Amino acid sequence: MLTVAMCVALVGCLQAQELRGHVSIVLLGATGDLAKKYLWQGLFQLYLDEVGKDHSFSFHGAALTAPEQGWKLMAKALESLSCPSDMAPSHCAELKDQFLRLSQYRQLKTAEDYRTLSKDIEAQVKQEDLREAGRIFYFSVPPFAYVDIARNINSSCRPGPGAWLRVVFEKPFGHDHLSAQQLATELGSFFQEEEMYRVDHYLGKQAVAQILPFRDQNRKALDGLWNRHHVERVEIIMKETVDAEGRISFYEEYGVIRDVLQNHLTEILMLVAMELPLNVSSSAAVLQHKLEAFRGLRGLNKGSAVVGQYQAYSAQARRELQKPEGFHSLTPTFAGVLVHVDSLRWEGVPFTLMSGKALDERVGYVRVLFKNQAFCIQHERHWAPEQSPCLPRQIIFHIGHGELSHPAILVSRNLFRPSLPAHSWAEVQERPGLRVLGRPLSDFYAYSPLRERDAYSILLSHIFHGRKESFITTENLLASWDFWTPLLDSLAHEVPRLYPGGADTGCLLDLELNGGHLSFSQQQPEQLVPGPGSAPKPSDFQVLRARYRESPLISAWPEELISRLASDIEASALQAVQHFGKFHLALSGGSSPIALFQQLAMGHYSFPWAHTHLWLVDERCVPLSDPDSNFQGLQAHLLQHIRLPYYNIHPMPVHLHQRLCAEEDQGAQTYAGEISALVANSSFDLVLLGMGTDGHTASLFPQSPTGLDGEQLVVLTQSPFRPHQRMSLSLPLINRAKKVAVLVMGRTKRDITMLVSRVGQEPRKWPISGVLPSSGQLVWYMDYEAFLG
Amino acid sequence: MLTVAMCVALVGCLQAQELRGHVSIVLLGATGDLAKKYLWQGLFQLYLDEVGKDHSFSFHGAALTAPEQGWKLMAKALESLSCPSDMAPSHCAELKDQFLRLSQYRQLKTAEDYRTLSKDIEAQVKQEDLREAGRIFYFSVPPFAYVDIARNINSSCRPGPGAWLRVVFEKPFGHDHLSAQQLATELGSFFQEEEMYRVDHYLGKQAVAQILPFRDQNRKALDGLWNRHHVERVEIIMKETVDAEGRISFYEEYGVIRDVLQNHLTEILMLVAMELPLNVSSSAAVLQHKLEAFRGLRGLNKGSAVVGQYQAYSAQARRELQKPEGFHSLTPTFAGVLVHVDSLRWEGVPFTLMSGKALDERVGYVRVLFKNQAFCIQHERHWAPEQSPCLPRQIIFHIGHGELSHPAILVSRNLFRPSLPAHSWAEVQERPGLRVLGRPLSDFYAYSPLRERDAYSILLSHIFHGRKESFITTENLLASWDFWTPLLDSLAHEVPRLYPGGADTGCLLDLELNGGHLSFSQQQPEQLVPGPGSAPKPSDFQVLRARYRESPLISAWPEELISRLASDIEASALQAVQHFGKFHLALSGGSSPIALFQQLAMGHYSFPWAHTHLWLVDERCVPLSDPDSNFQGLQAHLLQHIRLPYYNIHPMPVHLHQRLCAEEDQGAQTYAGEISALVANSSFDLVLLGMGTDGHTASLFPQSPTGLDGEQLVVLTQSPFRPHQRMSLSLPLINRAKKVAVLVMGRTKRDITMLVSRVGQEPRKWPISGVLPSSGQLVWYMDYEAFLG
Repeated sequence: MLTVAMCVALVGCLQAQELRGHVSIVLLGATGDLAKKYLWQGLFQLYLDEVGKDHSFSFHGAALTAPEQGWKLMAKALESLSCPSDMAPSHCAELKDQFLRLSQYRQLKTAEDYRTLSKDIEAQVKQEDLREAGRIFYFSVPPFAYVDIARNINSSCRPGPGAWLRVVFEKPFGHDHLSAQQLATELGSFFQEEEMYRVDHYLGKQAVAQILPFRDQNRKALDGLWNRHHVERVEIIMKETVDAEGRISFYEEYGVIRDVLQNHLTEILMLVAMELPLNVSSSAAVLQHKLEAFRGLRGLNKGSAVVGQYQAYSAQARRELQKPEGFHSLTPTFAGVLVHVDSLRWEGVPFTLMSGKALDERVGYVRVLFKNQAFCIQHERHWAPEQSPCLPRQIIFHIGHGELSHPAILVSRNLFRPSLPAHSWAEVQERPGLRVLGRPLSDFYAYSPLRERDAYSILLSHIFHGRKESFITTENLLASWDFWTPLLDSLAHEVPRLYPGGADTGCLLDLELNGGHLSFSQQQPEQLVPGPGSAPKPSDFQVLRARYRESPLISAWPEELISRLASDIEASALQAVQHFGKFHLALSGGSSPIALFQQLAMGHYSFPWAHTHLWLVDERCVPLSDPDSNFQGLQAHLLQHIRLPYYNIHPMPVHLHQRLCAEEDQGAQTYAGEISALVANSSFDLVLLGMGTDGHTASLFPQSPTGLDGEQLVVLTQSPFRPHQRMSLSLPLINRAKKVAVLVMGRTKRDITMLVSRVGQEPRKWPISGVLPSSGQLVWYMDYEAFLG
Repeated sequence: MLTVAMCVALVGCLQAQELRGHVSIVLLGATGDLAKKYLWQGLFQLYLDEVGKDHSFSFHGAALTAPEQGWKLMAKALESLSCPSDMAPSHCAELKDQFLRLSQYRQLKTAEDYRTLSKDIEAQVKQEDLREAGRIFYFSVPPFAYVDIARNINSSCRPGPGAWLRVVFEKPFGHDHLSAQQLATELGSFFQEEEMYRVDHYLGKQAVAQILPFRDQNRKALDGLWNRHHVERVEIIMKETVDAEGRISFYEEYGVIRDVLQNHLTEILMLVAMELPLNVSSSAAVLQHKLEAFRGLRGLNKGSAVVGQYQAYSAQARRELQKPEGFHSLTPTFAGVLVHVDSLRWEGVPFTLMSGKALDERVGYVRVLFKNQAFCIQHERHWAPEQSPCLPRQIIFHIGHGELSHPAILVSRNLFRPSLPAHSWAEVQERPGLRVLGRPLSDFYAYSPLRERDAYSILLSHIFHGRKESFITTENLLASWDFWTPLLDSLAHEVPRLYPGGADTGCLLDLELNGGHLSFSQQQPEQLVPGPGSAPKPSDFQVLRARYRESPLISAWPEELISRLASDIEASALQAVQHFGKFHLALSGGSSPIALFQQLAMGHYSFPWAHTHLWLVDERCVPLSDPDSNFQGLQAHLLQHIRLPYYNIHPMPVHLHQRLCAEEDQGAQTYAGEISALVANSSFDLVLLGMGTDGHTASLFPQSPTGLDGEQLVVLTQSPFRPHQRMSLSLPLINRAKKVAVLVMGRTKRDITMLVSRVGQEPRKWPISGVLPSSGQLVWYMDYEAFLG
């Protein structure tokens, strides 16, 4: 094998010397807007960069249009190709002639057309005595056309052995996780992962493309700074002045989050937040680290985002989509989203992503603002100009536009002098009066590219050189949709705040970051137009106060309910700690309490965790680190985020002597002993329960032979569901608690909620009906779906 | 009893109607500086405020000077009494005449003098048919005179039953905790606590005296803001332009921390940080809450403070104290101190206390800076003037001087409009061009007192009315010294940074807050005068690489050493996780590793904690939550700051079945079992050891009967130190590790380091000498003090 491999490598090497490689580039949609505006120019630039090196080229513009008409349209695009400013015009004109000679138009409509294309390429290669190096197919067509074209390419246009195939796609790559997954699966049936290049053209913008190299080349200075101890916040911003007029049929389907945040701003976020690979020029390492960064994103919820819509949008939509007078769109044209990265490096640092149309200026930037940890002794009039540690300290990747008007990287002079590649970046000349994000340009070491290059010409070069790190892999794409889809779903019926647009918007869209949530700084002004199908909002309802099974019932929409329950638990905790110095809290597992854990972890800073003991209500007989373990949910959603002393955590001993819930290991007795020893009268301050659709609570299931009465505090039980073996607090122990809260959420609980409301105390049939604290308080927390159906 | 009490109250009431109460005020040190400058004026103001109300007065100026001469000096002070601007001059002149008639001088030198004073007061009261209400003795004398005077007052000058005695002291109240305690004990032998009024005149400054009322009257607005979630930092600042010239004999003994920080700035800190009592006019509640706030202060250490000395100081000291040419003082004239308040409200919020002489301006203020949690969508040119949420948000208690030049309370307009007592505070008129802490005055709601009042006149009024909350109780004083003394001790031999003084100081004294420590922002410049015992700095040395006991030795200054060890541990961890998916690390307790834990927690973001298992090398037989427990140190300094899964933490089971290290509970066997089950071949990836001055390591002490050889992996041992019972990994288990690091730090280890370098493998005498991994690596980490002595 070794011999063969060496031989092949040797042959490849000899061939490269003997025969020039030939690359065919097929631009599908050659007469479309994107092609006219960027892609032909990008291909011309690629030709200028590569001509005379190892490869020869042919360029095939393709579209559905008939040859003659198509050629005319394409020729128009080619006429306007411009030469780089740093090239002699005569030389460039000569190369442009060559480029035009190498470019041809062809209609690609039928399967036959594709076969002909492939044969023509092969014939040309053979005729000119070339070696075929590879083929690039650039899909500059609407996504609905992808699959057909892909099928044709796969069946007819693959190059022979030894030559590569690269197919390039433009967004949108789906509309949500499901559609993205479907599209990816379809494309995956025609192409290998390494053949596909999904373009996010922001990754080709010079300031964005420089983020990782900048982090790499300034490792030493950034090492100590690039973390939560020093970074106060990160802003990733793309503001537009234009609105969506003329593009509404597209925009109405997508909105600003799908159009800008899910792709461009998220990709930038990854470049800022990801752990830096040792070798940033390794595509595999970069893509791997980026994927890991995706996994570290904290899930978004409704409170993570605010949305707006410029006032004229609905009227434009009515016009362009021929909608009736009463039509109002809910599509957001503005969004601010607060993202948290749950890593040791970034925990607690707010990343604000913001984009909108019809705003007061056009500008794109990433701003990393550092904490001001200095105190300057002298009056500010004595501060060292520009270098005082008390001036703002920031690093700005200026993507473009704004007052600076070109890509740049700016580092506050009181931070460090950055290192940038000297052959391609240079210090910006001072422009008196120019300010960047409120500070004079003189505050910064400011660098700009020596030559501004269009994103597409950079990306085409990366495609040609096979640099996959500048493109969106399937895993990367799906991870991004995984992250964004829940937010998009939860915002689907949200009425966006209307804003006048331009400077008139004033501070209507200003944002406030607070306790992990994002909100508008200003109270909602009167809506100028009432939203249409505006779903009822939590605030439209009062929290219902009623009784259920003769105990207090609190009923509300889920978020409101969780927030109320969390507050009640905190109040109990503070009271217990004040009186007894500690708070014994027993928590159930399952999915309902997750939102509660998150709320407690993120929203209740005065919670007396240092004095709280956490107990488990029940546990599955699996190792604690098993994803099925109730403890694991507690660990992931609560314990990781608070500071609870180790010895105040009391997982159930289901895993002793390397076996699970063996009677002879006496785990239940051990836990009961621990409770008796630490909890006065074995009376928990608060026990949180749930209710199953079969009426079970804790791990006490209908017809359970143990745990419903008797002396035992903790019991082993059997569940009808896997894993069958469980450990649970007994009903008598639960009923000794000072307070029991039962949390019931979701439509699936509707029937049991109805049923249990009518039955007496029959724990053998419905264990939940046996919950009745002997001298404590029982409170039911039900969301409207569980309670009202 | 009830009847009697009622009767007494009734009698008091009748008497008050019948007889006017008479108050005698004795000013000891009546001809001194303080009396001339403030106290006589304050007494005159008290008279103006109270004349014609319920009491009559007599004022006794007293000193050691003979009557005639004393009277002359005192008369001079009285002549310059000034009238308040809002009083008719003729009326004031009349009252001044009355005041002078009520004032007399007397020599107080002998016990007889005091007896005579008391008799004279009694005679006067009798003669004028008055009821004696009380006596105030104001000690405006050096502290060394306190005790004699106190003895005389106590034995001869107490008023009769029904009348009160109040004695007033001026700082300094001691020099450290011990001397303050002695002075307090002495004074306590003469006076009741409620009789004593210790003056901190800052508590009489109008802006300071208003802090608690302000917090009370603006409770609603401040409730959500006055905590760590909203406050970014608090600065408590007192800058002076004057230097210490002329006062060096005093200053040399005290320095800026004792002169300003321990008292004035600390008292202000308490007013800002303390929990607000429900009733802020209850002296008892205020004093109680203040004391609790003292208890919440995190202890200071050398890293909490930086000190400086203006350049001319030592020469001034040589002149004034007749010191020889070579004399250099170490007394700080500048100090910045970082204080943390360990409460849920303030955890993590830096309180910076700063004061200095010969600075660039004279100003005093408290600044509460709030976090900027807003993001303003529009370009700053569109921000709403003064009210934008993106402008700095702060509350400033401006004590005096500075550009504002008078006391004031300022609240940023983007916070809230404060409520202040309308009869005594009014909005400040706009003064164009005036800026306060870098912001135009127009940014603020700014209020000033309608009438500026001197601190002493306010405090004298509070003494007269018995408002003890404006004074320093004994408990309060000792709590303050408790807090400051360790820092003062640790700074005793610190060479202060020299600064030129005035504007020339530049940014030489700028401070940086970093990970709980405070440092100068700028590297130490060349000292203009070489400090005396200036210790060599870490950068003066290279890390030594050598061998010790035939194993590699790494030797450096402590910080460098810890940083090197932390990096080496991380490298081992990354390697182990890469190869085996996990890293088994066994750590020792004690004080040396604390800095290591902190370094690992704060400086190593890529440490693979999620895949790390932590084991203990040894443990004391105390509950895990005991402060003596090795685990507790690990918890406080490492576990709290990282995210280690619960089930990867392996404390030693020293506390089973509610008892400690009982043989029959088989804790050692259990731990050994856990190790065998989880650690492949029971071979830890890294074991961190220390070395005791007796040559012990882990909890294996010289002559230990167990753990030095044999089969046992984990053993119970006996320590010569308390607590005697220990659990420890055995030497054979340690020697199975892949790597063993021994960390040895501090001068006290010098002798054993020398000794062990020469001995063979004699674990029975020196257990450390038995550490020799059978197939792993041993590395010694020693700081220069341990290694070079």
